[in-house]
Amino acid sequence: MTVFAIVGHLARTDGAFSLNDCAGGAGRMDVLCRCVNASLTLSHGLRRDVECSLVLLGQPVPPKTVRFSGSTVRSLNPDERSPAALIKKALSIPCGSEFREASPGVSVRKSGLLRLLQEHTFGVLDKQGTDIRKAGQLPDAFLLSDHLDFTPDEEAIIADCPHYSVGPVVLHADHAITVLLNEIDRRNAGWT
Amino acid sequence: MTVFAIVGHLARTDGAFSLNDCAGGAGRMDVLCRCVNASLTLSHGLRRDVECSLVLLGQPVPPKTVRFSGSTVRSLNPDERSPAALIKKALSIPCGSEFREASPGVSVRKSGLLRLLQEHTFGVLDKQGTDIRKAGQLPDAFLLSDHLDFTPDEEAIIADCPHYSVGPVVLHADHAITVLLNEIDRRNAGWT
Repeated sequence: MTVFAIVGHLARTDGAFSLNDCAGGAGRMDVLCRCVNASLTLSHGLRRDVECSLVLLGQPVPPKTVRFSGSTVRSLNPDERSPAALIKKALSIPCGSEFREASPGVSVRKSGLLRLLQEHTFGVLDKQGTDIRKAGQLPDAFLLSDHLDFTPDEEAIIADCPHYSVGPVVLHADHAITVLLNEIDRRNAGWT
Repeated sequence: MTVFAIVGHLARTDGAFSLNDCAGGAGRMDVLCRCVNASLTLSHGLRRDVECSLVLLGQPVPPKTVRFSGSTVRSLNPDERSPAALIKKALSIPCGSEFREASPGVSVRKSGLLRLLQEHTFGVLDKQGTDIRKAGQLPDAFLLSDHLDFTPDEEAIIADCPHYSVGPVVLHADHAITVLLNEIDRRNAGWT
């Protein structure tokens, strides 16, 4: 299984946002929605062997983590509004420190990046990292930031993670996920 | 310059659709919006050397072509609603057989795929094509279909175009564009 985690520095942590304003009042939730779709959607189906966790750090009750599990998620379409509606629903239910399922394959808990770092050995996607095409075995979990850089505090706790680059041009997080999954698909299929 | 053209088989050809219903009443305009963003947006800026043309074949007055020119486009943000609003504006003005600018860098004309095929030498993205990593020089124009396959009539007129594949797994059109641009970025930067 491949795991993606994306830090949403401004993304709201309650369901009080409009699906028509994901890029505004929801704290750039649009960025995270595109990351969910890049992680999980295929032309005809879903990537059942991928998990995508969104670390939400915006108001009013940060941090929260919303996890999409490709193995069980339903009603996920590739437009931005579809994951946004599932995120909104997950953020609208009470949650504690353990994942609680809000809809099939979509769970939420009250924790953030530190907890995720205890659970997975992440590679960090970063323009200064090792070229993914030239890297040996790739990790099975990858950490990305949204439209903002990692903060100095975040940089400090991920400093020891291996860093990988997807190419010479700095891409949006969702585009980087797409390129990375293409590399993984090629390795799995013996195309490289 | 790199040119992408995407055929939107159901995409509306007037501006009478809601930005809140791009995946429904607009005829899967969401697919085309994501292709615009994959073609033109970078983490910090736009791809000024890319053009993206949308061939719209839905009701009420098909065909129309909406062209986004990276060199001059403005007010394009990476969320789906942003290109949707620019497309809606372009489809709301009268147009003839030559491109008419509706907003900076966004033009519309009353023609379809046949006209584009006279203007560019396209490579077609297709799961049966040559692996882009193994191909020699890549063309500077690429043709893709939306969520539907090319029709038999379309297949007939593009049969002589070279066909390329981005990988072993069939991706959404926008994801295929992202992977292809990564290959082009790598070639341009001497990364391969």
